[in-house]
Amino acid sequence: MVGDDPKDLAWALNQARYVARLVFISGGLGPTPDDCTRQVISRHFAAPLMPDEDVLNNIIDYFISREKPMPAWIENQALVPKGAVKLTNALGTAPGLWIKRRGSHYFFFPGVPAELQAVFEADVTRLLKDILPTRVEFKALIRTTGISEAKLWEAIDPYTRKPKLELSFLPGFGGVDLLMRGEIAESFEAAVKGIKQVVGPYIYATEERELKEVVGEMLRAEKKTIAVVESCTGGLLARLFTDVPGSSEYFLGGVVAYSNEVKIREVGVKKESIEQHGAVSAETALAMAEGIRERFVSDLGVAVTGVAGPGGGTEEKPVGLVHIALAGQRTRHGEHHRFAGDRERIREQAAAAALDLVRRYLSGILK
Amino acid sequence: MVGDDPKDLAWALNQARYVARLVFISGGLGPTPDDCTRQVISRHFAAPLMPDEDVLNNIIDYFISREKPMPAWIENQALVPKGAVKLTNALGTAPGLWIKRRGSHYFFFPGVPAELQAVFEADVTRLLKDILPTRVEFKALIRTTGISEAKLWEAIDPYTRKPKLELSFLPGFGGVDLLMRGEIAESFEAAVKGIKQVVGPYIYATEERELKEVVGEMLRAEKKTIAVVESCTGGLLARLFTDVPGSSEYFLGGVVAYSNEVKIREVGVKKESIEQHGAVSAETALAMAEGIRERFVSDLGVAVTGVAGPGGGTEEKPVGLVHIALAGQRTRHGEHHRFAGDRERIREQAAAAALDLVRRYLSGILK
Repeated sequence: MVGDDPKDLAWALNQARYVARLVFISGGLGPTPDDCTRQVISRHFAAPLMPDEDVLNNIIDYFISREKPMPAWIENQALVPKGAVKLTNALGTAPGLWIKRRGSHYFFFPGVPAELQAVFEADVTRLLKDILPTRVEFKALIRTTGISEAKLWEAIDPYTRKPKLELSFLPGFGGVDLLMRGEIAESFEAAVKGIKQVVGPYIYATEERELKEVVGEMLRAEKKTIAVVESCTGGLLARLFTDVPGSSEYFLGGVVAYSNEVKIREVGVKKESIEQHGAVSAETALAMAEGIRERFVSDLGVAVTGVAGPGGGTEEKPVGLVHIALAGQRTRHGEHHRFAGDRERIREQAAAAALDLVRRYLSGILK
Repeated sequence: MVGDDPKDLAWALNQARYVARLVFISGGLGPTPDDCTRQVISRHFAAPLMPDEDVLNNIIDYFISREKPMPAWIENQALVPKGAVKLTNALGTAPGLWIKRRGSHYFFFPGVPAELQAVFEADVTRLLKDILPTRVEFKALIRTTGISEAKLWEAIDPYTRKPKLELSFLPGFGGVDLLMRGEIAESFEAAVKGIKQVVGPYIYATEERELKEVVGEMLRAEKKTIAVVESCTGGLLARLFTDVPGSSEYFLGGVVAYSNEVKIREVGVKKESIEQHGAVSAETALAMAEGIRERFVSDLGVAVTGVAGPGGGTEEKPVGLVHIALAGQRTRHGEHHRFAGDRERIREQAAAAALDLVRRYLSGILK
């Protein structure tokens, strides 16, 4: 990491020169005076900066379509070093740049993370496939949720002790991804088959898809609508559902029932029930799930209520205790979890568990 | 980045040996067989692995408090290379490690991002302050929202052309951060003062605080309660409010009104109004804000309705158009935005704009 300083940037480019075949540089392509990457490239590669008509037109379109006045100096962004190939940036006005020199490839990205990602996905992934040597091998991604890294390993260990087979465990908030690489078809396939047999119910995808997308597709396929009511996750579960484009087909909406009054008035939980069992209880979670289903006239209702912390925990109901419930026409299912970590982690895990409850119900894993 | 391969890891450590005074290594401290960092450290530093009683007790406590059986092999995590200093990991069972050798400092972190961050914040920040040489200089962080990077630069440029003054613009979803460093007290202070004068209404913090925390503190100080209703942001705005610990003091709850039926039935928007003006309109946004305030009996009601895309845009109401509104006892305020970017970016920007509307109202910037 170097600062926005031409000297430091030039130093970093020089460092990369003799050791790296692929060099990725992000940041400094913006219009403000601290953005000096373009100038440094120009000097380093002895490539004069030329105004690029396409980029300039993009910038002009951007300002016209947003009805904003265009500052004159923004034209700096339209300067492209001679010999550089532009890389599509669907999210911004500054394109990425690709320069080949002495067998090395230099990729320049905008510094805004979303734009960097957009440039990478639009052009660079494809270019790298041509640039990098390919090796014939077998790969599999197995995405699990609801099982810890340690338990997962213990369960699959007997099936994965094979020659030329590599396993990587990638734990995240929502679950553990298992990345497999192998060189021998037979033993690789046997391992994949064994894993699917022994931890099948925990597997939600075997490709680059997220749990929220998988659940959304299941709801769409089953033509079922859903509504959510959440306390400790405070909007996070609804957000996950609505992250998916087209979710309005099955997601009707939700209530963030942060106070008990809202649970009672807007979701129809009985006041006496909360007083007797508490807001964080199996009974309240089920009443919330049934209440939201009725109020929103949906096929399924999901509820989350728990103690996200850092305050509010008791001996009996400690921080991390989360009740989730699902209600359908003939279904009532409740379960509770003890999640570890800070407030954010507990909330993320609780929302993932609620999503997964829907997945397990729709795949027939729940009785 | 190297894989979980002892040879590659050893190579990387050797590379760092002669060139770096500070070396940060993350990953490979877990219990699964692909985790080999501990063994590589032991060999590289000729430091035998010794079982550490404190770490072992932590692991045992972890499993006991979660009422989970403890696999025998998890004890691997309790091995610590001789001479290494343990670093607190509040979120997991594997501690970080700190090793000093020949004037260089090696820090080993767990690979799970949240745990890496926890270890860094708990111990490493403090240690680095002792390790790194200090330089006397002036620093300021100015966090803005609602103004673009280009506009911000244009506005503050005349005030920041000073000797020995460095400016960095850090744009994010929620706004642009301005990082200032200077070496001359007088000109530094004049620049800060000038910036505050010229873009004051866009500044929400001058320290490491997020907009959601600033707004939460304002609501708490003013003893005002709030409820939200959101369409295109689908839970994201509620989530931002409830990210803040203790938010139940002022945040009563919200409704994710994804379908028009929910807007009508649960929030009290008039059906005719939606038919006449559309779900994405100034009229509907205001009706939603007033409706949620009434239903949830809160001091303030905030509403968001827009087109997040990728589908659903029209010539008249394109993807990125978002109406937000605020209702109070004597307040009705509505505004609309045209956000650029993909679905996620539009949603993040819309939620940030709604939060900022509350900030501007509470600071008296809105009439």
